[in-house]
Amino acid sequence: MRSSLLSRRDLDFLLYEWLEVDKLTTRARFAEHSRETFDDVLDLSEQLATKYFAPHNKRNDAQEPSFDGERVHIIAEVAQAHEALAKAGLIGATLDFEHGGAQLPTTLAQASAAWFSAANIGTAGYGFLTTGNANLLVAHADPAHVRKYVGPMLAGRYFGTMCLSEPQAGSSLGDITTRAQPQQDGTYRLFGTKMWISGGDHEMGENIVHLVLAKIPGGPAGTKGISLFIVPRYLVDEDGARGERNDVALAGINHKMGYRGTVNTLLNFGEGKFTPGGAAGAVGYLVGQEHHGLSYMFHMMNEARIGVGLGAAALGYTGYLKALDYARTRPQGHVKSRPGGGQVPIVEHTDVKRMLLAQKVYAEGALALVLYCARLVDEQRTTEDAEQQARLGLLLDLLTPIAKSWPSQWCLQANSLAIQVHGGYGYTREYDVEQHYRDNRLNPIHEGTHGIQGLDLLGRKVVQREGASLRELDARVRATVAAARAAGVEAATLAAQLDSSWHRLIEVTGALWAGGDPETALANSSVYLETFGHIVLAWIWLEQFLATGTGTDDFHDGKRHAARYFFRHELPKTGPGLELLASLDTTARDMRTDWF
Amino acid sequence: MRSSLLSRRDLDFLLYEWLEVDKLTTRARFAEHSRETFDDVLDLSEQLATKYFAPHNKRNDAQEPSFDGERVHIIAEVAQAHEALAKAGLIGATLDFEHGGAQLPTTLAQASAAWFSAANIGTAGYGFLTTGNANLLVAHADPAHVRKYVGPMLAGRYFGTMCLSEPQAGSSLGDITTRAQPQQDGTYRLFGTKMWISGGDHEMGENIVHLVLAKIPGGPAGTKGISLFIVPRYLVDEDGARGERNDVALAGINHKMGYRGTVNTLLNFGEGKFTPGGAAGAVGYLVGQEHHGLSYMFHMMNEARIGVGLGAAALGYTGYLKALDYARTRPQGHVKSRPGGGQVPIVEHTDVKRMLLAQKVYAEGALALVLYCARLVDEQRTTEDAEQQARLGLLLDLLTPIAKSWPSQWCLQANSLAIQVHGGYGYTREYDVEQHYRDNRLNPIHEGTHGIQGLDLLGRKVVQREGASLRELDARVRATVAAARAAGVEAATLAAQLDSSWHRLIEVTGALWAGGDPETALANSSVYLETFGHIVLAWIWLEQFLATGTGTDDFHDGKRHAARYFFRHELPKTGPGLELLASLDTTARDMRTDWF
Repeated sequence: MRSSLLSRRDLDFLLYEWLEVDKLTTRARFAEHSRETFDDVLDLSEQLATKYFAPHNKRNDAQEPSFDGERVHIIAEVAQAHEALAKAGLIGATLDFEHGGAQLPTTLAQASAAWFSAANIGTAGYGFLTTGNANLLVAHADPAHVRKYVGPMLAGRYFGTMCLSEPQAGSSLGDITTRAQPQQDGTYRLFGTKMWISGGDHEMGENIVHLVLAKIPGGPAGTKGISLFIVPRYLVDEDGARGERNDVALAGINHKMGYRGTVNTLLNFGEGKFTPGGAAGAVGYLVGQEHHGLSYMFHMMNEARIGVGLGAAALGYTGYLKALDYARTRPQGHVKSRPGGGQVPIVEHTDVKRMLLAQKVYAEGALALVLYCARLVDEQRTTEDAEQQARLGLLLDLLTPIAKSWPSQWCLQANSLAIQVHGGYGYTREYDVEQHYRDNRLNPIHEGTHGIQGLDLLGRKVVQREGASLRELDARVRATVAAARAAGVEAATLAAQLDSSWHRLIEVTGALWAGGDPETALANSSVYLETFGHIVLAWIWLEQFLATGTGTDDFHDGKRHAARYFFRHELPKTGPGLELLASLDTTARDMRTDWF
Repeated sequence: MRSSLLSRRDLDFLLYEWLEVDKLTTRARFAEHSRETFDDVLDLSEQLATKYFAPHNKRNDAQEPSFDGERVHIIAEVAQAHEALAKAGLIGATLDFEHGGAQLPTTLAQASAAWFSAANIGTAGYGFLTTGNANLLVAHADPAHVRKYVGPMLAGRYFGTMCLSEPQAGSSLGDITTRAQPQQDGTYRLFGTKMWISGGDHEMGENIVHLVLAKIPGGPAGTKGISLFIVPRYLVDEDGARGERNDVALAGINHKMGYRGTVNTLLNFGEGKFTPGGAAGAVGYLVGQEHHGLSYMFHMMNEARIGVGLGAAALGYTGYLKALDYARTRPQGHVKSRPGGGQVPIVEHTDVKRMLLAQKVYAEGALALVLYCARLVDEQRTTEDAEQQARLGLLLDLLTPIAKSWPSQWCLQANSLAIQVHGGYGYTREYDVEQHYRDNRLNPIHEGTHGIQGLDLLGRKVVQREGASLRELDARVRATVAAARAAGVEAATLAAQLDSSWHRLIEVTGALWAGGDPETALANSSVYLETFGHIVLAWIWLEQFLATGTGTDDFHDGKRHAARYFFRHELPKTGPGLELLASLDTTARDMRTDWF
């Protein structure tokens, strides 16, 4: 039976026909793998997602985590699902064999993760956070800390979190006030409050490893004085045995619109609740060097941002498949081409086809974009050419805000259309799609809001190293355009359209920065982000169009038709945004606060 | 203190400075009224909404109506609020004095209703349904039935519903199967199941008056064989005393994403639950003539559609004001223009201003559009010129799908932006905006989905009487353009932009129908609806711009700046839609169902 979580056919297309992930097995890092092991990972992910994650997705929403003042209560299926994930070796999917990982390409790990997000993003969240935490430790922490924490995380015994935000600082991390007092023994004692901590407290597993941003007194002001600390919920002895409770106290949990399965907490560090003698602070261990914490955290954050895009894509995808199932089986209304034939399934109505096509281009496009980025990560990690490695890094820098924001915006829209296809049923909790929509609404907010992504793209990424990142993407877009021009009349027509939009975008980018005034350039950074994103997706769709090659079955025909839809219905939407940007519009900037 | 439900300043602007509602008091129907009584209605509505509706909005969501298998349980505040509405005379606000109404202009009644929708749309729903029901009975029912049911509804003792949909028919009313068997005594017995019935069963008040669409056996097929019946939950004696329970049984309730306060039900008519001798049918009384039911129901439906637009606008509006309050008081981040000044309220950030401006143009624009339509209703009702009356009816026909769909689409987007302004807080149930967003997501679905509105607009309204409706709107748009051209340089610039878009829309409309093939014309009816809607709103914004006259205070400055925002950021979005329509695009139509 075809899954209503994701399309394995499409995944195979993206991974093998387009991204040629099997070629990675020629690299030393992935030499132990083969197309067979990759397929096994995909098979297993689908099976585990279907068996352990999907069945309690609704219950994890309806009976969301609760806090009785002492403990967090989470339905038992969550821990069971997490355990299944750990047993399958998927928490450390991309980590080195030596650290207990499966040393898989990131592309495969993301494809695997998509199954779990589609099935139950609330439960899957615990695994993703733990993976991100383990990856950061392996990259930046002291080997002794890696040995102590990473193994138990990969085994599913310890969970991981990331603790950045504070109530008074929000997106502005330079304003955090959590402080870390150095101790004689080289450890630190942390004092402060952290907000929006997913998985911040619960009774699953044996321990929770918090990665906490804090300031060491006397350090530089702003973001340059931020350090990163490991703060475990329970202290761990040298032999790995669980010791005393650390002074990290749960102050409350947030009640969200969706994504309810992942408990979201307010944590107090060092308030004295667990240190009977008074507020002696929460014990913390420095990661890497003092004051370099933000760069380490951004290692995790960039991974998290692509992960947000993947989660949004997966929710959009499963919503699309469920809407499609509904549309194929729900009889309603009549069409002229079947006179006297009675009711037809609603998939026959043109406006329903339009809503399904839109979902198809949003969901498949978003998934393709994220897997493309993951493929770049693998290339970057395994290339032996240092210059090429640097160039891949620049390209990834540029694409990360798109990979985070575009799926978050458009796969939410896909979920809205999935509801619309279901009519009133889609608005009820009896069907899945209303939850996907609520879950997906988080994605434009967390791990850097939509607005922050716009500032990052226009204010930092396109101008970094005098436009070097943009030149990397430019080279790739031009290569695709050239390939398409040689691939037949229709491909050439799409290529011309992309080429025109892309060049206009480059021109407009130059015009925005021509005056050298950041406030003018950034006045419409969100418009820039959205315009840029849609043009990038046109490129991704042209790439997919080309990858269909000479395939003439329904799958390939559908893929090509979806590309046509994107170029006719979606890409032209960027025209007004480009003109608005080119005009250096200051309407929003000129609005006086008293005029509201 | 300024209300965070609606802006009274804006309402006064729309009603008096723009729509000159006070001039209606020169009409005989409204001669008893004055600016003072109008203001009293607005004051009272704000007070009642604030006192009786807003306080339990969250509780009516968190403790939504429940069904224990026998009865529906609804929190007590709902009945209390409904009673307050009835006591204030607002259920029959527009009805004649002779029927116990307040004989207010519809424009005032809608402005009043906006307060209740903004405060608590779930609770307000019971009142709106009852009002719509009473208005239909007065217009079409036998005077004896009017006497029997309308008085108690206006007094808050009886509630009203409308029962159209059935599980197997959905939007396709021609396929309903509920049947009404004529009896010797002139009454009917109804058998069938009705779906999505808001307020369909509960223990509030003394009775519920269902207005039910059903087919009399032997009548014409499809929609031409539909009749309308009064089916009370309890039979009512000639002297108005409540008699036996009628055979209308609650089969279940729907659990919705939002709008939870209005109980939504599945009702079985005539299954025999309340007729001990067996399934003898639910007693029904014919409204008007046999087989004319749909036209009577559309009397209520058109009112309901404008009401949906109003509700969407009110939710968008209160979300905007709450986001504004939050943005003014939340310190976060820094701006270059205040060096060393510490954190600033987020309203100072340009991207936040953009999100607030977008909400302002969506919410204020939607409210203006709905009140404009209501003003047309009043004009139509009181003009003594029969030709003018017919023309107003045509214009209302055309604007109704816009008044329903545009606020439903864009004020949902406004609520999404309100969440975004709040950041993570906006995603939690501790703040109001997440509920507004969930509540508002219903509006593109009920009372005719977005897709149905598109088919109605392009397939019926713009072509009816050889384009007579479109000509009515054309005359109004041209008049506004002419007035703007004479009102100064800036107004003239906006006028030129509107004029250009409007003419292109007229051209494209002609091109769509030039081939005489409905399937081709209607292939992109939703794109047409959205393009048409945005151009209509540009006209509404130009109207508001002109109505600011020479006002130079913050309010008028803000209104003009919002109009600028609409013309620079919103109206240009219609360009790609117009070109797509002009190309007679068949991408969605050409998609084969096997290709998905």
